[in-house]
Amino acid sequence: MIEILPLTDIGEVLPGSDLAAVLIAALNEARIEPTAGDVLVVTQKIVSKAENRFADLSAVVPGERAVALAKQTGKDPRLVELVLSESSEVLRSVPNVLITRQRAGHVMANAGIDRSNIGSATGEQALLLPEDSDASAERLWVSLGKRCAVVISDSFGRPWRHGVVNVAIGVAGMPSLIDRRGDLDRDGRRLEVTQIALGDMIATAAGLAMGEGAEGVPAALIRGVRWSGPNSPASALVRPLEEDLFR
Amino acid sequence: MIEILPLTDIGEVLPGSDLAAVLIAALNEARIEPTAGDVLVVTQKIVSKAENRFADLSAVVPGERAVALAKQTGKDPRLVELVLSESSEVLRSVPNVLITRQRAGHVMANAGIDRSNIGSATGEQALLLPEDSDASAERLWVSLGKRCAVVISDSFGRPWRHGVVNVAIGVAGMPSLIDRRGDLDRDGRRLEVTQIALGDMIATAAGLAMGEGAEGVPAALIRGVRWSGPNSPASALVRPLEEDLFR
Repeated sequence: MIEILPLTDIGEVLPGSDLAAVLIAALNEARIEPTAGDVLVVTQKIVSKAENRFADLSAVVPGERAVALAKQTGKDPRLVELVLSESSEVLRSVPNVLITRQRAGHVMANAGIDRSNIGSATGEQALLLPEDSDASAERLWVSLGKRCAVVISDSFGRPWRHGVVNVAIGVAGMPSLIDRRGDLDRDGRRLEVTQIALGDMIATAAGLAMGEGAEGVPAALIRGVRWSGPNSPASALVRPLEEDLFR
Repeated sequence: MIEILPLTDIGEVLPGSDLAAVLIAALNEARIEPTAGDVLVVTQKIVSKAENRFADLSAVVPGERAVALAKQTGKDPRLVELVLSESSEVLRSVPNVLITRQRAGHVMANAGIDRSNIGSATGEQALLLPEDSDASAERLWVSLGKRCAVVISDSFGRPWRHGVVNVAIGVAGMPSLIDRRGDLDRDGRRLEVTQIALGDMIATAAGLAMGEGAEGVPAALIRGVRWSGPNSPASALVRPLEEDLFR
């Protein structure tokens, strides 16, 4: 059996908050003792807040390219400037849609920059992804005494399918990707499916206990998932540009 | 708390098997009483087997287009012929990769046609997706007395990310997609994320208890997910061609 335990008792996380301490307090409050095989899933939003990844839109001066893309997409040119500064490549820009490859390689809308639920009613603030989400996950993992793995999740849209799901942008203490290449199936045939996106699966499952928006729960512990194989960061989930079929 | 309960005691499902009866027996064996709010997730493979969606490759005569695509992809031309017969459109064909829009609208490798773990060591058999996976889910839902929702899952690759995850190709008794358009966040701003792919999230979460290949578990019950909104089939998850940014 697998259990997904939401951590509801987490107050507002602020720049400079000791996120590991906040999470340990919430685990204690929920009477959950993390152990080997558990995964603590934390939303990008509270990691970014603790790391003070806020950007003040009123201080951003959009360049020429940002102004052009803002016209194309109908987005705030200052936000587009931030998106460009966080991205290595623009994949699509059409009305209401700006999809880029974020610095860490993740392909996502607006380079993951958020303007919802960041504690700013004026809309003059934006929240960027952590500087390096794998490193943030690693630091949390170490701060938690490596008692359980850590996944940092964010919600992604997908091509060809409606709706968002949570995926992993930071992973520590577990394999983000399970490699089954060479394994045989029950009939002795080579497996057609050879790599399993375990980090993304865990982020998505935790999303079921988190919700979106007003009732949002920023962390959950998943217990009972079994895996084998060496640890790998979320960057292992990123398909390199040269393998990319859908640029 | 959310629980994912694997149903391990399911024997080999054969063409003509009464899948609802098989699942009810497995639920009884596991001492699980499905109730409102539970979701029974079933892999495509056992649904297809029960519906006898086997195709004999040795009886397939590949046409001209299949032969050309087989050369391009390095795949068996008879398999490619089956893929074309199950698809409305070919999206990508490069060595080892054939991505199409399957008849029901899902974009996936080989139109979801399987040659692993289908009980055929010779490789002369292939297993197609159910004729209509939403209708199959609906029939199972009715046969289970509508006591719990039903999701039929299959593993999909994704653009830009390594590894597969399970998503929903059939849904009954619950919303596959939750529409949050118009909702406000805690700061009173309109939510940026407006649709949540609940059916896919549940399929992915169940995948954590199912595994791939030799140790595969073909069904799991998820308990404790809360949702609101009208029921919708998995077809609601398919982004229509005219909205598709990545053809």
